[in-house]
Amino acid sequence: MPHIPDAEIITIGDELLYGQVIDTNSAFMGQELGKLGIRVRQITSVSDRADEIVQALDAARTRAQVVLITGGLGPTKDDLTKNILTEYFHTELVLNEASLRDVESIFARFNRPMMEVNRQQAYLPASCTPVRNVVGTAPGMWFEDQGVVFVSMPGVPFEMKRMMTDTVLPRLKRHFQTPPIEHIVVQTVGLGESFLAEKIAAWEDALPANMRLAYLPYLGGVRLRLTGSDDGQPDLRGRMEARMPELRALLGDFIFAEGEVPLEAAVGQLLTERGLTLGTAESCTGGYVAHKLTSVAGSSRYFLGSIISYHNDIKVKELGVSTESLAAHGAVSEEVVRQMAEGARQRLGVDVAIATSGIAGPDGGSEEKPVGTFWLAYADEHQTVARKITFNRGRQLNIEYATTSVLNLLRQSLPQR
Amino acid sequence: MPHIPDAEIITIGDELLYGQVIDTNSAFMGQELGKLGIRVRQITSVSDRADEIVQALDAARTRAQVVLITGGLGPTKDDLTKNILTEYFHTELVLNEASLRDVESIFARFNRPMMEVNRQQAYLPASCTPVRNVVGTAPGMWFEDQGVVFVSMPGVPFEMKRMMTDTVLPRLKRHFQTPPIEHIVVQTVGLGESFLAEKIAAWEDALPANMRLAYLPYLGGVRLRLTGSDDGQPDLRGRMEARMPELRALLGDFIFAEGEVPLEAAVGQLLTERGLTLGTAESCTGGYVAHKLTSVAGSSRYFLGSIISYHNDIKVKELGVSTESLAAHGAVSEEVVRQMAEGARQRLGVDVAIATSGIAGPDGGSEEKPVGTFWLAYADEHQTVARKITFNRGRQLNIEYATTSVLNLLRQSLPQR
Repeated sequence: MPHIPDAEIITIGDELLYGQVIDTNSAFMGQELGKLGIRVRQITSVSDRADEIVQALDAARTRAQVVLITGGLGPTKDDLTKNILTEYFHTELVLNEASLRDVESIFARFNRPMMEVNRQQAYLPASCTPVRNVVGTAPGMWFEDQGVVFVSMPGVPFEMKRMMTDTVLPRLKRHFQTPPIEHIVVQTVGLGESFLAEKIAAWEDALPANMRLAYLPYLGGVRLRLTGSDDGQPDLRGRMEARMPELRALLGDFIFAEGEVPLEAAVGQLLTERGLTLGTAESCTGGYVAHKLTSVAGSSRYFLGSIISYHNDIKVKELGVSTESLAAHGAVSEEVVRQMAEGARQRLGVDVAIATSGIAGPDGGSEEKPVGTFWLAYADEHQTVARKITFNRGRQLNIEYATTSVLNLLRQSLPQR
Repeated sequence: MPHIPDAEIITIGDELLYGQVIDTNSAFMGQELGKLGIRVRQITSVSDRADEIVQALDAARTRAQVVLITGGLGPTKDDLTKNILTEYFHTELVLNEASLRDVESIFARFNRPMMEVNRQQAYLPASCTPVRNVVGTAPGMWFEDQGVVFVSMPGVPFEMKRMMTDTVLPRLKRHFQTPPIEHIVVQTVGLGESFLAEKIAAWEDALPANMRLAYLPYLGGVRLRLTGSDDGQPDLRGRMEARMPELRALLGDFIFAEGEVPLEAAVGQLLTERGLTLGTAESCTGGYVAHKLTSVAGSSRYFLGSIISYHNDIKVKELGVSTESLAAHGAVSEEVVRQMAEGARQRLGVDVAIATSGIAGPDGGSEEKPVGTFWLAYADEHQTVARKITFNRGRQLNIEYATTSVLNLLRQSLPQR
């Protein structure tokens, strides 16, 4: 009989509590558990201290049947998790030959000498089932204790991810055969959370009890996630889908994609469909637009290149911006950003170019053009479009917001097929 | 009498448990509390459900005297924190005139109509002291209850940060006058955690009981943080500093900075000191090197621009790479990456240029040049240096690792003053 367990995640490490490291592992684990229909009840980050780790384990097992633990498995002296678990489960460390071979092969592959601290990593609690680590030196450990599954994994994200995907998730799936929950994600850009909420309030109010809508704001837009849970009736997915046309009609062009598709990938999809090539000319965004575009695998099919003209000389020499325009209007101006987009189109030999010129801050602002003033432009063979935005929440966020905005300008300006 | 409280952080939102959003707030709060000498005992992420939030509050107050809460204060229906806290502290919602004026001024500033849901945000629990939000519509709330301070803040990072800095931290400081803990951070690059640990094992073993060393690995290197806690003896900082020369001698050129200085800022500092300008020519990194460099405020003093030559035509046309070299060796080769760096130096008119050409994946690899093969180059007026690295942990990490590596190549190759 299928049984839906609750899960908890415990991440271990002083560095998390001191804020020296951001916990990205929990998000990955939460996403993957969700796909199996396993709900994460709580995420707990604790220090490297034994008593606090034990308290967290004791608390988690009262609420959940799966406890995933990351961190504290490294070879160094502040990594105590393995010893704590050995004591917690009243067992002892024994050499695991298979794990030793894995550790040895890691060192052989990188052609580096193996240290004694690494050999120690192949000693594992006798009562656990080892979880192979094929990309690092710390094996994972799977324990079952009084009906609760505990899995300890390294805190290094790519090691944990590989271990989850290869071993832990398939094994959890066998253990707990659960009905899935369903998610439908709609990506919007250009509308704040409150405005969105007001627009779709009636639609949201009409949702049945087993469907919930979550607003997931990001810089420049909101992802909407409709989650449906099993109510014993057939075709949960179909009943969720049936509610979508009304939502789509309410939001119109603010929707740029459905599913987990970032804006840069949605734009890439449009360019591919229309057979167009793209380049960028960037001043204030300093390469971030190109980076976002090239973060999409396969982007070389439509993205050809960029000219990052941080200095005005490069705007003139490499993009053909006129020195008169720079002198008359300054680099952050409609005239200059238009010339940048048009110049990039010519110089890079692309069908479509986008350009940014603005003041990311914290310095460089003036009364007329304060920090957070950005000019964006789009150019194709038929038209050049410029747009001014103002946004000031600190240098990094300003760069990100300008990037999202120029990608949205591109999306809205591309010629129809 | 000074009293050192422990703190806990509770972050609220289904999106955290589903992994749709990464919790970056806790790291910021942990860092800032640490500077006040307040230790974070636990970070707990819970869902939007009232009973689970109440359980987390009940548990946190048994362990800590400060409980910072973020999330669930938005204007939408899944944001329940304010109502839950109102009930938890047996109080009622009343209109707060000052908060209403703040909300109104936010809408006035952005020249947008205010919605009824936003007006509701100015209703606050009668027993709390409001915490002003000058950059968003949800006020924070400060409660004191049976010796424990609870502060509820929005989950939007820049709103929370502003509120912490302007109001919450100064107020906590007045409340709990605590002796500081001291941190010394040493930034290293190019050496893995195990090798580093082995190199400094004797030094680490000799640390007194009130000093602890933490290894904080990042992609391409490790940050070391020495933390000293008050032991009743004078000059804690001085006694920590006295241990540093030996560590510095052990690690030598692997250390690129001390303090919270990222590699791109350390490189910028070197360029500034030596009066040199920089440009980049990027293929596989697609603008990420330029982005990292320009993420540093004031980088326009030394960074002039880049040519992102994703397509080979742009390598030829804009960087002067020879078509013969491309045909004979391919784009990912020592010959081509050297020409890219030299070409960028010429075309961008910079003193120093760095270049990348590699296969970020997931496609494009071959037997001879598998995914994760990267050629990096550095060029100045006296020399061109090329380096090959191999690293394959997925597209994004490959791009990041290549970026760190080429910045390190730059650091190591720059002419001495």
